Amino acid sequence: MNKPLTIIPDVQGSVDTRQIAINKVGIKALKHPLQILARNGEAQGTVALCNMYVDLAHDAKGTHMSRFLELLNAQDSALDMESFQFLLSDMVQRLEAQRGYIEFSFPYFIRKAAPVSGVESYLDYEVTLLGEIKDGEPSVTLKVLVPVTSLCPCSKKISAYGAHNQRSHVTVSVRPLGNLWIEDIIELIERQASSELFGILKRSDEKLVTERAYENPKFVEDMVRDVAAQLNQHPNVAAYVVEAENFESIHNHSAYAVIEKDKQASVAS
Amino acid sequence: MNKPLTIIPDVQGSVDTRQIAINKVGIKALKHPLQILARNGEAQGTVALCNMYVDLAHDAKGTHMSRFLELLNAQDSALDMESFQFLLSDMVQRLEAQRGYIEFSFPYFIRKAAPVSGVESYLDYEVTLLGEIKDGEPSVTLKVLVPVTSLCPCSKKISAYGAHNQRSHVTVSVRPLGNLWIEDIIELIERQASSELFGILKRSDEKLVTERAYENPKFVEDMVRDVAAQLNQHPNVAAYVVEAENFESIHNHSAYAVIEKDKQASVAS
Amino acid sequence: MNKPLTIIPDVQGSVDTRQIAINKVGIKALKHPLQILARNGEAQGTVALCNMYVDLAHDAKGTHMSRFLELLNAQDSALDMESFQFLLSDMVQRLEAQRGYIEFSFPYFIRKAAPVSGVESYLDYEVTLLGEIKDGEPSVTLKVLVPVTSLCPCSKKISAYGAHNQRSHVTVSVRPLGNLWIEDIIELIERQASSELFGILKRSDEKLVTERAYENPKFVEDMVRDVAAQLNQHPNVAAYVVEAENFESIHNHSAYAVIEKDKQASVAS
Amino acid sequence: MNKPLTIIPDVQGSVDTRQIAINKVGIKALKHPLQILARNGEAQGTVALCNMYVDLAHDAKGTHMSRFLELLNAQDSALDMESFQFLLSDMVQRLEAQRGYIEFSFPYFIRKAAPVSGVESYLDYEVTLLGEIKDGEPSVTLKVLVPVTSLCPCSKKISAYGAHNQRSHVTVSVRPLGNLWIEDIIELIERQASSELFGILKRSDEKLVTERAYENPKFVEDMVRDVAAQLNQHPNVAAYVVEAENFESIHNHSAYAVIEKDKQASVAS
Repeated sequence: MNKPLTIIPDVQGSVDTRQIAINKVGIKALKHPLQILARNGEAQGTVALCNMYVDLAHDAKGTHMSRFLELLNAQDSALDMESFQFLLSDMVQRLEAQRGYIEFSFPYFIRKAAPVSGVESYLDYEVTLLGEIKDGEPSVTLKVLVPVTSLCPCSKKISAYGAHNQRSHVTVSVRPLGNLWIEDIIELIERQASSELFGILKRSDEKLVTERAYENPKFVEDMVRDVAAQLNQHPNVAAYVVEAENFESIHNHSAYAVIEKDKQASVAS
Repeated sequence: MNKPLTIIPDVQGSVDTRQIAINKVGIKALKHPLQILARNGEAQGTVALCNMYVDLAHDAKGTHMSRFLELLNAQDSALDMESFQFLLSDMVQRLEAQRGYIEFSFPYFIRKAAPVSGVESYLDYEVTLLGEIKDGEPSVTLKVLVPVTSLCPCSKKISAYGAHNQRSHVTVSVRPLGNLWIEDIIELIERQASSELFGILKRSDEKLVTERAYENPKFVEDMVRDVAAQLNQHPNVAAYVVEAENFESIHNHSAYAVIEKDKQASVAS
Repeated sequence: MNKPLTIIPDVQGSVDTRQIAINKVGIKALKHPLQILARNGEAQGTVALCNMYVDLAHDAKGTHMSRFLELLNAQDSALDMESFQFLLSDMVQRLEAQRGYIEFSFPYFIRKAAPVSGVESYLDYEVTLLGEIKDGEPSVTLKVLVPVTSLCPCSKKISAYGAHNQRSHVTVSVRPLGNLWIEDIIELIERQASSELFGILKRSDEKLVTERAYENPKFVEDMVRDVAAQLNQHPNVAAYVVEAENFESIHNHSAYAVIEKDKQASVAS
Repeated sequence: MNKPLTIIPDVQGSVDTRQIAINKVGIKALKHPLQILARNGEAQGTVALCNMYVDLAHDAKGTHMSRFLELLNAQDSALDMESFQFLLSDMVQRLEAQRGYIEFSFPYFIRKAAPVSGVESYLDYEVTLLGEIKDGEPSVTLKVLVPVTSLCPCSKKISAYGAHNQRSHVTVSVRPLGNLWIEDIIELIERQASSELFGILKRSDEKLVTERAYENPKFVEDMVRDVAAQLNQHPNVAAYVVEAENFESIHNHSAYAVIEKDKQASVAS
């Protein structure tokens, strides 16, 4: 292939005269392999969907798109909260920007033991690392989607037998104070569900989770309140959003609820 | 706008020398508004995702892409099986092809009355009209996805109380013999589920569907077998595929089963 | 089926003691047929994905889920900004709530004439109506996703011939002041793109849109700036977010940019 | 939690009397971490979406769902064609079935060097391993989706300058004869595209891929024919399906084509 002999003009590097700054510009929906540091100290390989943006001053024509990818392709150690924040700062510096934003979403696995038989299997969760730098201040949000069983208290109460139940998604977004692991949030949520889920359940396990769910009926409202109560008490949670979506087994739509709280704000949003 | 003054070359219309015929070529993933004729004689407006293909002889460079859209944009009456088959024939003729394939997928609504209170609400279904012409012979397949409740017989049997249940998708694809309406297939499937779904359920209705599901436990295997048994008996069904997918409320994966049958074939596939 | 003879307990209506209010609770991901009022005065039928939420006081156990659906199933006139706002107020009142939130997303069609041949065909857009009531104050946001062609200025400048181009999504969310139609926003965006899209293009049209795109190269940064400049001048736009996503034809990821502005705020967010 | 003291009944293991065999039954849409053996001998970690089914005799009530997961959770070596086929055979045996079907879909990465600058970055592909056992005969299909650039020959020919181009998906499903790696198929496809894609492109690279695409215009019909011609010649390909979908930059729909061939069949399907 012919190599360019002459200087190639830099269009993105030219001056812009429209007097309009851009809040965020960068790359979106890039798939990239990542290593995530688990609570047990091991690195877990996964595949992330990546968005990376910076701001752009009113007089700059364009950002340096390839630098986002260079940063990502140079990332060779497992990510935890600290190294994620370092990547964020590095990006803002390398892109010569004032603000920066990174969002990595990926499946994350935990090997769980079934409650009676003890048989082990993986369960998958959807995790998002969100980082933002404004005015030199980095902030990180950890978001975890945990699939659970929910069983309807009304259906149980009014029916002669049985109660409708279904898979639900409980999603918690946390701004941490100090140390907080993905596993911490998953466990906190699973303890509040009608029942947690498992990959493998033998018959003795299935009996137990069926009865446990029947003993712990929860509306979508109960789910977000009970998780919120735990997050209110947790010393390492500065702010949170907790959502629950029940894929109702008696309807073709979901029931949904959300509670937001910034524990450091004097008044609620 | 400047109109072209000279003749514009027709690249697609030129001769191809690679000696390779193309099985299907056309447009895919086009959104288009459609009218569908309901069993009650009324036309229902909806939005379809459309795929339309024809074959292409080895010596033709390209097909006439804009003709597919002209056909679709000229469609001004409500579709039923007959007019769908006419559109299919028309396409093959207009595209100067031997074979043709059309696939229209769209949400379809039925206004249902809740079982005790009688309150009415819409429930949505996913319907696909599939048509194919080979060797001059048109064949049409009607595919209907019906969301239902399934309740696990094992969980009910082994547990002191309760039983896990969940939303399930039962999908039937039918090659009809004579008349067959979308509504016919929906009703056939809903009668075999642990319970059918509704948009609005008052408390008296919720009690009934909860108890009905508990009284009618079905594995994913039972669901496809019971629907297959009905389709085996139905005089207007020439061939079918019935699938069931349970979005298990105790797992983060689905249970799935399928039965295929061509009643006109001497031996099963 | 047995009708209930006794009074059915109302679990949702009981008192909650956890002292935790819920920001939003309701129904999510419900498919429902809707009529939308077009600028030309005609009603356009479509299928919407609907989310409807209200707040819930700390001492109420649960909301009244079926009332959301009753409201929706009673909606029998075509929606415009005014009737949408009325539905929002009605919901907050019927649910005995302080705050309310509605989100309807749906495909919307415009019949366009090809630029040279004049041949007509539908083009589809994704529209979202978002309404919120806080402290008795309703506010409505109109969000429109417009698919366009973008052509890269850098690629054009540095290459001996050609320039990479691709489909892009430009999405504008507007808080209107006075009257604003879906069609107004679509036209505003399409005029700023390298080229607008069409369903049917004859060869004379294809020549024109190819050349027009080559004459109007735009980075993702240019697209959001040029649309922002138009929205800045528009008297009926109080606040806006404009996003552009280019599905890069030379990469397997997108380029993305966003500008947010509240014209009524003294300082930018 | 109370452990079961008595024997738990085995509902799935009971006898069925409906006289209807089931073609496929098992688990669907399970996310699971997998290792894939790359051509260079290294194992690549990824996350797969897994479907695993077996047939079920007419007199068996249900299959053994947990065994599918036990097989998957016991898989501890990197998969290649051979070990995948072994897993398939193992499944049929462990499930006491006659037929079996496995489908693993996952993102797969290749580290590519940009064509001029030589800068390295990952590009992602979607790969599916499909295995089926019928009548004791296992057969494996390897399916690879390769994103590429396509540039329209008609648009180039009729326009004074420029040519519309876009991202396209070329998907090849192959039944291999002997050895065939994912990388082999990717390279075969990328050589036939108007241009291949890269994660990172410096300006000198962008110039080259822009000009290369302009020099190699291809209709969707050309893409499938040129890939088919290569697959026809390839000694390790027994049968194939090649599809191309162009996400047209001048329309809001795709152009699509497919060629199917079983080289071992005496007549085409």
